[in-house]
Amino acid sequence: MLFKEITILNENFEIEENMYVGVAEDRIEYVGKARPKKDFGEEYEGKGRLLMPGFYNGHAHSPMGLMRGYGENMVLQDWLEKRIFPFEDKLDSNAVYWGTLLCMAESMRFGIVSSSDMYYFIPDMVQAVLDSGVKTNISRSVVNPMGVPFEELPSIGETRQAIREFHGAGNGRVLVDTSIHAEYTTNEETCRKLADLTHEEGLIMHVHVSETQFEHEECKKRRDGRTPAQYLNDCGLFDGPALAAHCVWCEGEDFDILRDKGVSVASNPMSNLKLASGMCNTPKMMEMGINLAIGTDSVASNNSLNFFEEMKALAVTAKVKANDPTVITPKEALMAATRNGALAQGRTDCGVLKEGNKADLIVLRTDVPNMHPVHNMANNLVYAASGSDVVMTMVDGKVVYKDGDFLTLDMERTIFEAEAATAKILKML
Amino acid sequence: MLFKEITILNENFEIEENMYVGVAEDRIEYVGKARPKKDFGEEYEGKGRLLMPGFYNGHAHSPMGLMRGYGENMVLQDWLEKRIFPFEDKLDSNAVYWGTLLCMAESMRFGIVSSSDMYYFIPDMVQAVLDSGVKTNISRSVVNPMGVPFEELPSIGETRQAIREFHGAGNGRVLVDTSIHAEYTTNEETCRKLADLTHEEGLIMHVHVSETQFEHEECKKRRDGRTPAQYLNDCGLFDGPALAAHCVWCEGEDFDILRDKGVSVASNPMSNLKLASGMCNTPKMMEMGINLAIGTDSVASNNSLNFFEEMKALAVTAKVKANDPTVITPKEALMAATRNGALAQGRTDCGVLKEGNKADLIVLRTDVPNMHPVHNMANNLVYAASGSDVVMTMVDGKVVYKDGDFLTLDMERTIFEAEAATAKILKML
Repeated sequence: MLFKEITILNENFEIEENMYVGVAEDRIEYVGKARPKKDFGEEYEGKGRLLMPGFYNGHAHSPMGLMRGYGENMVLQDWLEKRIFPFEDKLDSNAVYWGTLLCMAESMRFGIVSSSDMYYFIPDMVQAVLDSGVKTNISRSVVNPMGVPFEELPSIGETRQAIREFHGAGNGRVLVDTSIHAEYTTNEETCRKLADLTHEEGLIMHVHVSETQFEHEECKKRRDGRTPAQYLNDCGLFDGPALAAHCVWCEGEDFDILRDKGVSVASNPMSNLKLASGMCNTPKMMEMGINLAIGTDSVASNNSLNFFEEMKALAVTAKVKANDPTVITPKEALMAATRNGALAQGRTDCGVLKEGNKADLIVLRTDVPNMHPVHNMANNLVYAASGSDVVMTMVDGKVVYKDGDFLTLDMERTIFEAEAATAKILKML
Repeated sequence: MLFKEITILNENFEIEENMYVGVAEDRIEYVGKARPKKDFGEEYEGKGRLLMPGFYNGHAHSPMGLMRGYGENMVLQDWLEKRIFPFEDKLDSNAVYWGTLLCMAESMRFGIVSSSDMYYFIPDMVQAVLDSGVKTNISRSVVNPMGVPFEELPSIGETRQAIREFHGAGNGRVLVDTSIHAEYTTNEETCRKLADLTHEEGLIMHVHVSETQFEHEECKKRRDGRTPAQYLNDCGLFDGPALAAHCVWCEGEDFDILRDKGVSVASNPMSNLKLASGMCNTPKMMEMGINLAIGTDSVASNNSLNFFEEMKALAVTAKVKANDPTVITPKEALMAATRNGALAQGRTDCGVLKEGNKADLIVLRTDVPNMHPVHNMANNLVYAASGSDVVMTMVDGKVVYKDGDFLTLDMERTIFEAEAATAKILKML
């Protein structure tokens, strides 16, 4: 496909107008001012449109798509114990498949091309992702509050199986990460041994860190004054590539650990506001050069995957947190949503619109009143764009969503099946 | 028009499915489960759609539409002195008309049917609103830092003229409010005399109150320890209907004044985050029974009029502010965005979908992945809906926006003229 005379967010995350972008197979092969000599096939008219890298969602739990709006206005413990845990207990392969597919549909509608997705029922999740055409860094979340020996944990067997069967599937669209759920849901042996396994296999460790003040403070009581980041670091979790979700309550040397160990952080600003968890100190992280990505968390706590909304939430919460409207430039917010997320997933040839990279691209309508005037298009992208103005989502060179149509799945059936699976579970409760 | 078999947000702000709603002239004439006997003309198919009251924007400065994204990442004083004031100084009738029309287009696209709009160049703003078909509570913002005698202020002459010429125009679509810009930009005589004029004319007073901590604390120094709310109350501003924008730093007896005097508050959560002004104590206001509406502020500081985004921002900032995820129910957020805003504008027959009320209605697509599953549609409306999924906006029974088409204005020309007016001003700077 050849995008012609289109405005782009270029490899330096600056706006360029009237550009040509040629896609061949799964790669961006040409970016330039002049029309390329090569015939790239279908031509896409760029007037009133903007082409940019797709979004890399740094933290998700897709099967929880079935719990959108289930149990709102509750305190965390009630919400978990009365709603989420009983519902999760009834999940089966069918429910997970359709819940994940629903979230993949929503993802592509809002321009997300890949998600760091932590949950269980991995084979069903992978199937939904492969069917949908998008990407995932999938991880089987390991919990072990009772101290079951490592090799007896079903989640470890499932993790090993996922690595064998799915790592690199779909021409690299599926990558398998490992996951310690969190400090408070595991014991030290589990953390240490899963860290070892992660490094042996050369994978990325995905873990919840200091989401709530309670979690953070209780950890210090349990772990000789160490914070979750400090304790998990002592367990070796950060001795290889790692992705720490939330980090709302990180303090003091936590930030140094994250920077020195090259840990990526996925901030989930909307979920953190909605659950009243707090606001992550993203300005400090950016200033320190920590790789900051953006996550949606699950739609049970967000309650959407509207990544334009999430990017704006990241930027404006940073400003109020720092008490300074000058922190986080539009360029930094756009990089967090794209390049930094791709790096957090180990996808070094993704997240930047440049020749040779994977063609994970989205097209946004700009011929709408909210995108004018254009003093600074990067600004409009971060603060004025509307998520459902994404009119095309392309993953590895393949168009998966265009002008309201889902090209890889039957939307009406997906909604029907997701509703049916939800109703079936509710009936059992 | 007859909406048939459609899901509605009913007069109790609860969801009802498979309803019939008949609109005749400018009113809702029928709401019921059964098909009405009367022929309402054109029929609207309700499958996959939701009908609800349109949004009433409690605080706007529409001509600033031309300054979207102009001067970002600056501290307030620099932003005002280096960007906003010089730009405003070059505004003319033509620029204000097209800037306002652009914002009215954006408003209808995101479901806003009426705005409390404080600025100057009132005749040009009114013309744009009348042409667009939406509603406004317009006010000529009065500033008087130098203490010019009241009757010599041009803004007072313009206010009187606006009352004479425009109050009730367009079959009541245009209402004229008065406006003291703020405590720090006026003197006591101006406040007292404009308050008197307001009460004589039976109008609503629209005023900025405690937007920033600096404004709030400096007022206390200047006004014998009184806060802006206390001082303005002493000047008589709240002795009749009044609308106080922001109220981020209100404290102590300020809240009692707002409640006891029946002052409506327009909270502008996104603008307050983005300018790092802080978070309004909306949970306390709601608990006290203060009429809480939602405002976008101008797109120079927001930078959009996406009211679904704004409603979600109100709800989630309330939760983190209160450190309690149970505050603000979806019903309360929906009421703030609709009924409370209408009440703040003195539009007592608007903002609620019930027989006899004005037909200010919007239709939202629900056949999209982000609106499923439906555990609770009110929840999905507040937290999962996307602003550009509004597929119809109707004001006083007249459809002004449908399926991406602007029926009362030429969108392409509006964008062109708004860009041209902006370019002309930038050239002069």
